[in-house]
Amino acid sequence: MVLRSLPSLSVRCLSSATRNVLKPGDILRKARLFTEEDVLQYSKASCDFNPLHTDAAAAKNVGFEGPLVHGMLVASLFPHIISSHFPGAVYVSQSLSFKFPVYIGDQITGEVQATNLRVNKNRYLAKFKTRCFKNGELLVIDGEAVALLPTLTVEQGQHEEH
Amino acid sequence: MVLRSLPSLSVRCLSSATRNVLKPGDILRKARLFTEEDVLQYSKASCDFNPLHTDAAAAKNVGFEGPLVHGMLVASLFPHIISSHFPGAVYVSQSLSFKFPVYIGDQITGEVQATNLRVNKNRYLAKFKTRCFKNGELLVIDGEAVALLPTLTVEQGQHEEH
Repeated sequence: MVLRSLPSLSVRCLSSATRNVLKPGDILRKARLFTEEDVLQYSKASCDFNPLHTDAAAAKNVGFEGPLVHGMLVASLFPHIISSHFPGAVYVSQSLSFKFPVYIGDQITGEVQATNLRVNKNRYLAKFKTRCFKNGELLVIDGEAVALLPTLTVEQGQHEEH
Repeated sequence: MVLRSLPSLSVRCLSSATRNVLKPGDILRKARLFTEEDVLQYSKASCDFNPLHTDAAAAKNVGFEGPLVHGMLVASLFPHIISSHFPGAVYVSQSLSFKFPVYIGDQITGEVQATNLRVNKNRYLAKFKTRCFKNGELLVIDGEAVALLPTLTVEQGQHEEH
């Protein structure tokens, strides 16, 4: 477990190697670099063939530096993080604000921070602040998620990041 | 073009065969049936291996009828619809409320309805009501999206639904 300080907020960063009980303020993270193959695979799964993701010239015509990773693919880091640590979690809601472009090859860190936890029948309703950073500092996606967790015990993720 | 009436609202339903100019109230739709293969492909692209999507017993243990389609995969219908009719569209935001489970094999219709359109430099900032229905009537995902469109001319989608 790593302790760090944020302005006016002390948070515990639970790595995937930690087995612990989730508390408000805790952060779970995963780093990922999206490849051209990831983008193609996601294009097929989603049928989203927007040329911005596959055609460098089309992306540059709109003012981007190169092909973009689908915003919804980058945002998939949030349910990925939640479900890898809480297998059987059920997604309730997600808001997403796409603030800056994510290019193929960018180093992205997804972060979910528990903000509210309450018992819901035999499960837990958990609210998370959900954010993605590029190169560890630039906020590229901001939002919130709510999920029903079977337990607050943080499992070690079986599937690690790329 | 098909005309239909909704309570207190007349809307134009623009099919993928229509070439028209988008106006507030217009609806664009796509139907899709998510297969086990789609779910596996999405699991690989997103690294989201939540057992609820692949393990019928795990899904039934939580009270579901069978393996669920990832909510974010179902929600990918929204950028898919928008980008197939407006190639080069840039996603700005998306909110998602997952109201009912979507099972592998369910017939899902994604619907985006333009609610606000305004010029933004040399592009158009478009706000959409975004909804998915199961079997044409049960609202399974509700939310809103904002996208920057290069034009308001509705192109025929090159990639059709499954």
